[in-house]
Amino acid sequence: MPVDLNADMGEGFGPWSIGDDSAMLDIITSANVACGFHAGDPLIMANVAREAQAKGVSIGAHPGFNDLWGFGRRVIRGDSPSDTATMVAYQIGAFQSIAALAGHRVTHVKLHGALSNIAAEDDDLARALAGAIRAVDRDLVFLVMPGTALERAGEAAGLPLAREIFADRSYDDSFNLTSRKIAGAVLHQPDAIVAHVMRMVEEGAIITTSGKRLKVGIDSICVHGDNPQAVAAAAAVRAALTEAGIAVRPFASGEPR
Amino acid sequence: MPVDLNADMGEGFGPWSIGDDSAMLDIITSANVACGFHAGDPLIMANVAREAQAKGVSIGAHPGFNDLWGFGRRVIRGDSPSDTATMVAYQIGAFQSIAALAGHRVTHVKLHGALSNIAAEDDDLARALAGAIRAVDRDLVFLVMPGTALERAGEAAGLPLAREIFADRSYDDSFNLTSRKIAGAVLHQPDAIVAHVMRMVEEGAIITTSGKRLKVGIDSICVHGDNPQAVAAAAAVRAALTEAGIAVRPFASGEPR
Amino acid sequence: MPVDLNADMGEGFGPWSIGDDSAMLDIITSANVACGFHAGDPLIMANVAREAQAKGVSIGAHPGFNDLWGFGRRVIRGDSPSDTATMVAYQIGAFQSIAALAGHRVTHVKLHGALSNIAAEDDDLARALAGAIRAVDRDLVFLVMPGTALERAGEAAGLPLAREIFADRSYDDSFNLTSRKIAGAVLHQPDAIVAHVMRMVEEGAIITTSGKRLKVGIDSICVHGDNPQAVAAAAAVRAALTEAGIAVRPFASGEPR
Amino acid sequence: MPVDLNADMGEGFGPWSIGDDSAMLDIITSANVACGFHAGDPLIMANVAREAQAKGVSIGAHPGFNDLWGFGRRVIRGDSPSDTATMVAYQIGAFQSIAALAGHRVTHVKLHGALSNIAAEDDDLARALAGAIRAVDRDLVFLVMPGTALERAGEAAGLPLAREIFADRSYDDSFNLTSRKIAGAVLHQPDAIVAHVMRMVEEGAIITTSGKRLKVGIDSICVHGDNPQAVAAAAAVRAALTEAGIAVRPFASGEPR
Repeated sequence: MPVDLNADMGEGFGPWSIGDDSAMLDIITSANVACGFHAGDPLIMANVAREAQAKGVSIGAHPGFNDLWGFGRRVIRGDSPSDTATMVAYQIGAFQSIAALAGHRVTHVKLHGALSNIAAEDDDLARALAGAIRAVDRDLVFLVMPGTALERAGEAAGLPLAREIFADRSYDDSFNLTSRKIAGAVLHQPDAIVAHVMRMVEEGAIITTSGKRLKVGIDSICVHGDNPQAVAAAAAVRAALTEAGIAVRPFASGEPR
Repeated sequence: MPVDLNADMGEGFGPWSIGDDSAMLDIITSANVACGFHAGDPLIMANVAREAQAKGVSIGAHPGFNDLWGFGRRVIRGDSPSDTATMVAYQIGAFQSIAALAGHRVTHVKLHGALSNIAAEDDDLARALAGAIRAVDRDLVFLVMPGTALERAGEAAGLPLAREIFADRSYDDSFNLTSRKIAGAVLHQPDAIVAHVMRMVEEGAIITTSGKRLKVGIDSICVHGDNPQAVAAAAAVRAALTEAGIAVRPFASGEPR
Repeated sequence: MPVDLNADMGEGFGPWSIGDDSAMLDIITSANVACGFHAGDPLIMANVAREAQAKGVSIGAHPGFNDLWGFGRRVIRGDSPSDTATMVAYQIGAFQSIAALAGHRVTHVKLHGALSNIAAEDDDLARALAGAIRAVDRDLVFLVMPGTALERAGEAAGLPLAREIFADRSYDDSFNLTSRKIAGAVLHQPDAIVAHVMRMVEEGAIITTSGKRLKVGIDSICVHGDNPQAVAAAAAVRAALTEAGIAVRPFASGEPR
Repeated sequence: MPVDLNADMGEGFGPWSIGDDSAMLDIITSANVACGFHAGDPLIMANVAREAQAKGVSIGAHPGFNDLWGFGRRVIRGDSPSDTATMVAYQIGAFQSIAALAGHRVTHVKLHGALSNIAAEDDDLARALAGAIRAVDRDLVFLVMPGTALERAGEAAGLPLAREIFADRSYDDSFNLTSRKIAGAVLHQPDAIVAHVMRMVEEGAIITTSGKRLKVGIDSICVHGDNPQAVAAAAAVRAALTEAGIAVRPFASGEPR
């Protein structure tokens, strides 16, 4: 069974950048691209799309709250599910068009930050979002964490789904990501990250810190590229997968139709 | 020969609005919808798209500079033609996706404000913009003023074109709009506006203040809806056209493909 | 005992406006001026300051969340109290400087929208905000609703306080504003508004829908000017106060020091 | 004669940063702090102010065009001089208030980017800006390039002036900065930068590439901190000045009044 490696890309804005997108595009197979609301601007989006196309990396829209200042990590309350979904549709369409300009095609959607967090636990919001994605393009793959409202809503809407695990985050016994407030929530050492990923991929299960297992289909592994150590860890994950005979490739093809 | 009536719509943002979009959507046949950069937000865009769909009005993207404060009327210098075109592609795509959500389809593009003004006189910029529109969707009709760099670039790119005259603006002897600094540049009286339009439509020509004529194909007439008098003038133009046996209908069909 | 009339002013942005500020500045004695985060831009702020100065109306900063789209009515969670207070200090300073340019002086602060609502119930946040106001200018009068965390924090910080009642809102039996979801929460008829205000001012008490009373010092009455009926109601309130021999004047003098 | 070292600081926004402000605050004596329009947010501004205060570095407002995307480097045309000045006053006041919160005081103003460039050549705009600075606080030192409209306007307005030279930029024979399009416009080697500065400081003159001299008072030297090499060059400039017996200190005291 092949597996995909995904990471957030294009998280700069105007003069600013975060992470080494170019290095990561040599490692990952799917790029989640910020769409201008929490980060990203048209030029950055186009640059990522072009380089991803050249490197055979699939691209997805990574919509978030309209909050550059807070990088989409602040929760904004007050919009209806339908209004939030409309805001997400805007971002997906913007990136589809940028991708067309760059000779590439948007094949998935992954929600960002606070929007993702609240939608993962809110079935009404998740349903509105899945419905909007489907209205924009029913072939878009919805990249979600197993066990969330997003997965349920995507299934109910008939969207193609890809399920991801996190390479550098530990899981608690409810199979959620361990809260960042708890020590050990985030793994930093490449060795530990590789071991964490390989155990889960080989068992086809989320494995919690205490050793509990939840069988899940693992279509993608989320890695990060915010700093050189993270890039090195991502490369190590890819190398370990390849060495174990697991093909690393996108869950969705980025070829223009 | 039928003719289209177009107007700018959706020029609010968040809590703010300008003009009576609903009244205008009963009069016009093509709506140029602001896409969030100089005005417009996803909710406003979706509302216009829905109401336009219900009333049989075609919709177009109306991209402008990224300048809410200045309503896209301030010239921003410093981006390359290619960067500006990328910014325009973003806006078109955003509206395509909002339109899909609303059950409608974007069938034209008309540039807004300062961006339109400078591109009308800058062949390099106009070519970049036409190329971007074509890359996003080669069926998009480019709504332009005859005699401009935009018309030339649209023709060269092979885009379908629609040519417009302005109902409430007089023309100088170079067949440009009379500068707003000159008295009489803007017509306010419905009677004068109707007479101005009907002469040009019946002769198939732009007619300047001094009486000079330039034969042009007139596909659309641009009207405004910023205030009640403007709405009344737009309605009077439509009534006069109908009375003269000239069919008023969109230059592009808004039916979803 | 004199009383002040306050209203929110300058709630436009760029090309957009809300309400008839000029008419309201003939009626009110204190203007709460949006500072660019949820509404307001430097030019609008300067215009309100100039006209207020000419009409003897005191001015205050009306800071809100950084959310033009949501007009400061969406709750944004994720900033610490200290960070929120820094954001408020920014807005106050911006208006102080604009006021200086206009020959006027900022003499009070009233929080806007969602920021006001959450701070009214959050003692930590309220304390941080009162502390920031004091650090910026210890003479600024903090305009608050009686019984809130804001009043307590202002008192504790040693800020001069002004306490306000709402002309067009009914109160529930916990002496809070009746939820807008309940019928009768907002009064629209000028006669009802005048009667509501006069009863409270004459008794020196907040009076709830069921008739309960809470004795409070009433320094100011909040009126609205969003629509012509609201402007008429505000004028009627002023006329009724004057007729009853109650002086209507600012709680703080706007004279430059 | 002592001399000041100034650099732009606080050029991040939200999650993004540029340069190593902390390292630079150990080297420079005056920090020009972005005020939220082209870069900078209240939290970043407060952090720079606090660290500058602790390190004895004076702070100034560094206002620019309202253009985060373009980092204030795009020229925006369409505002009157008076409107632009109002926008600048807003930014200065915002930083004054943030500085007060941080226990520091704003003692100078230096314009940023495209706004600085156009105002340096536009006497009307320069006069409006100098007038606004004076209206906000007549003790603010206006940090300008000698020979510009800004210097003339500052003098005419009676503002205290500080004149700066650029450590890493060569001058052409009209005593302007050499255009960045010409090779050698920007110096990168610390040795070359130090030699360039020391010659000018020792002669009290701007010295052009061809060797022409213009006698000027040199109150400050502008250095940069965008990358590690630039930080090293700035440190080398400071060391060379000290070794030559030239005191390095702020042209304005940052003590709160």
